[in-house]
Amino acid sequence: MIVQKYGGTSVGTAGRIKRVCRRIAETVRSGQQVVAVVSAMGHTTDRLIALAQRVSETPPARELDMLVANGETITAPLVAMCLQGLGVPAISLTGPQAGVRTSRQHSKARIREIRPERILEALEQGKVAVVAGFQGATEDLEITTLGRGGSDTTAVALAAALGADACEIYTDVDGILTADPRVVPEARLLTHIGYDEMLELAAVGAKVMHPRAVEIGQLYSVPIHVRSSFHRRTGTMIVAEVPMEDRNRVRGVAHEKQVAKITLLSVPDRPGVAAAVFEPLGAHGISVDVIVQNVSSEGHTDLTFTVAEGDLAQALALVEGVAKEVQARGTSHSLGLAKVSVVGTGMLGTPGIAARMFRTLAEAKINIEMISTSEIRITCIVEREDAERAVNALHSAFELDQIPAPA
Amino acid sequence: MIVQKYGGTSVGTAGRIKRVCRRIAETVRSGQQVVAVVSAMGHTTDRLIALAQRVSETPPARELDMLVANGETITAPLVAMCLQGLGVPAISLTGPQAGVRTSRQHSKARIREIRPERILEALEQGKVAVVAGFQGATEDLEITTLGRGGSDTTAVALAAALGADACEIYTDVDGILTADPRVVPEARLLTHIGYDEMLELAAVGAKVMHPRAVEIGQLYSVPIHVRSSFHRRTGTMIVAEVPMEDRNRVRGVAHEKQVAKITLLSVPDRPGVAAAVFEPLGAHGISVDVIVQNVSSEGHTDLTFTVAEGDLAQALALVEGVAKEVQARGTSHSLGLAKVSVVGTGMLGTPGIAARMFRTLAEAKINIEMISTSEIRITCIVEREDAERAVNALHSAFELDQIPAPA
Repeated sequence: MIVQKYGGTSVGTAGRIKRVCRRIAETVRSGQQVVAVVSAMGHTTDRLIALAQRVSETPPARELDMLVANGETITAPLVAMCLQGLGVPAISLTGPQAGVRTSRQHSKARIREIRPERILEALEQGKVAVVAGFQGATEDLEITTLGRGGSDTTAVALAAALGADACEIYTDVDGILTADPRVVPEARLLTHIGYDEMLELAAVGAKVMHPRAVEIGQLYSVPIHVRSSFHRRTGTMIVAEVPMEDRNRVRGVAHEKQVAKITLLSVPDRPGVAAAVFEPLGAHGISVDVIVQNVSSEGHTDLTFTVAEGDLAQALALVEGVAKEVQARGTSHSLGLAKVSVVGTGMLGTPGIAARMFRTLAEAKINIEMISTSEIRITCIVEREDAERAVNALHSAFELDQIPAPA
Repeated sequence: MIVQKYGGTSVGTAGRIKRVCRRIAETVRSGQQVVAVVSAMGHTTDRLIALAQRVSETPPARELDMLVANGETITAPLVAMCLQGLGVPAISLTGPQAGVRTSRQHSKARIREIRPERILEALEQGKVAVVAGFQGATEDLEITTLGRGGSDTTAVALAAALGADACEIYTDVDGILTADPRVVPEARLLTHIGYDEMLELAAVGAKVMHPRAVEIGQLYSVPIHVRSSFHRRTGTMIVAEVPMEDRNRVRGVAHEKQVAKITLLSVPDRPGVAAAVFEPLGAHGISVDVIVQNVSSEGHTDLTFTVAEGDLAQALALVEGVAKEVQARGTSHSLGLAKVSVVGTGMLGTPGIAARMFRTLAEAKINIEMISTSEIRITCIVEREDAERAVNALHSAFELDQIPAPA
């Protein structure tokens, strides 16, 4: 049994829906049971949100969910009827009908459990179950949507609940690459990547898979195959263990360009300061990214962190309020930054990798503004104008262009 | 408590949705509880059906229902969020959430019952319940649509189940007129009309209200107010008893232009012939309209009936098959006909009305091809080119232009 997820681009037109259905039909004819999870067609969701904004300045989240959920419930029956036209028995199910039970947080609901009775019934009858992604229902059948990465999350969660052999994520790129090919022409497709590596890559700018879906895949050991819906070549398998010969190396270079930095200057070094700064940001939905606190001297410290450039104005307003409260000397900020990261379990206990990263950037005369690391990732904040050069230099330095292409 | 139904034209754009919401807000502020039933915006349903036809030659009815139901479930949350923006508490409900339980016949489901708990809960909380019209669910929560007149039917059925004081049908015309104003410039608005009269008018070409909804109104004594969503003037009340001074007269002249006639020639006059002819037509969804069987002579009879011109080819094919079976001499048919009817409880036991109709047509040199009557309706089939003259002549002859305009 296989779960296949088709994104908005893959089902963007009637012609593309037909192509998707031919692919599903092939999988069925090869003897597999198929659950297809589908997104809204192309820009349908954007158009529904634009409509909402024309009738309401601040659309309430419950009603926005009721509205936006139509995007996926339009695609699902179109796919089901197209499959039937190809002689493949199929039935469409809304998220609620498919048993996707969620929390009550409209527009960012979390999946609580899957009650897959209707899907199993359809599969037993030899049908393809076509499930509207991105949506579910609370216990009392209020319609919810899952927020960013929602359809991927539906697909991987269904694969976990059904004990499927794999979850295929069909998208408009070939899979997970060693870097963004618009920046690094030599970027290569990865045949395998670990869940942890994928999570780190997703967090630092590789947009192909949302971390939520990867986390569920990791938790329930669902192999996730990220591949293109436009050709038949295999893409990237996200799995627990990558093949041995790939393990001892950096796997990819990711970057993100719209980064701004905020510094609280000379903050008294006492417990609770960081919480006082970051709690109001979190409460306003602002994601704080790299955080660096310099070593304290004379009881004072500088606290620097990055936010998405679009959040800078709101973040600054909040931080300036807190600055007085915590008796900081003031704040400073700068725009025009970028984040460049290398990721790979290979760097676990391999200190040479950080050194090689810094040396590579130094040789390219790129100044490092901030550094942040996890066990399998090193991130540097650099000037935005240096970002593409940094990514290319690192891609070469770690020999990512040498990875053998998949067969 | 009042149920208001807004049709597709009334909610066709964001601007029109705002206007509808201002009207609902006024009703709420006047102290009434409001349930708003909404249709799909403008041509949304047509667009969804066109999409279906691009991916499937014969879209199965279940999937088509899943698809088309999105039209109304897009409008409902838009109206609810717009109302909230105007300071009016509101909640949208899909047909299934609103408790509309139907039969299993996809694309033409019948309402079995209404379980209005969620609507009542919303009203108790001081909210407007905005219900997606035209749709419901079976016992096992399969989504169904109600077919033609579906949103009107939802509205009147909800009004009946909730014991509402009235059901207002907002539409793009002023109400029920004595004739089609595009044909008869002197046509006047009727302030009141009886359920029976409305049913007869709807059956013979007045398209404003679908007979299904009128039947439910009659059965449960729900007063139905048909009125324009574009101005504030009252429209037509459909009620059990029309005011005394309106009772003894013809109420309206209706007509329909796309009529064709089929005759089975010289059919043996024995039991079962009519059933043999009309059963296959019914099984193929072809509505047969006026049926006339001439007085039998020498054991044979001619059987003539009308169908919509668009159904002629299919009907003829079926009838020619039957003709042999029942040993008729053959079939004949003609196109280019029209149906002209006068309706009014006033003609009950008033034979002079039929005579006046025939006399009026004779004086206008209009030949009558067929005649059919009910207790409160007389219908003549005439040449299509005579139809407009016939309608105008009858409108004058029965002094329908003399009805006082509503205050």
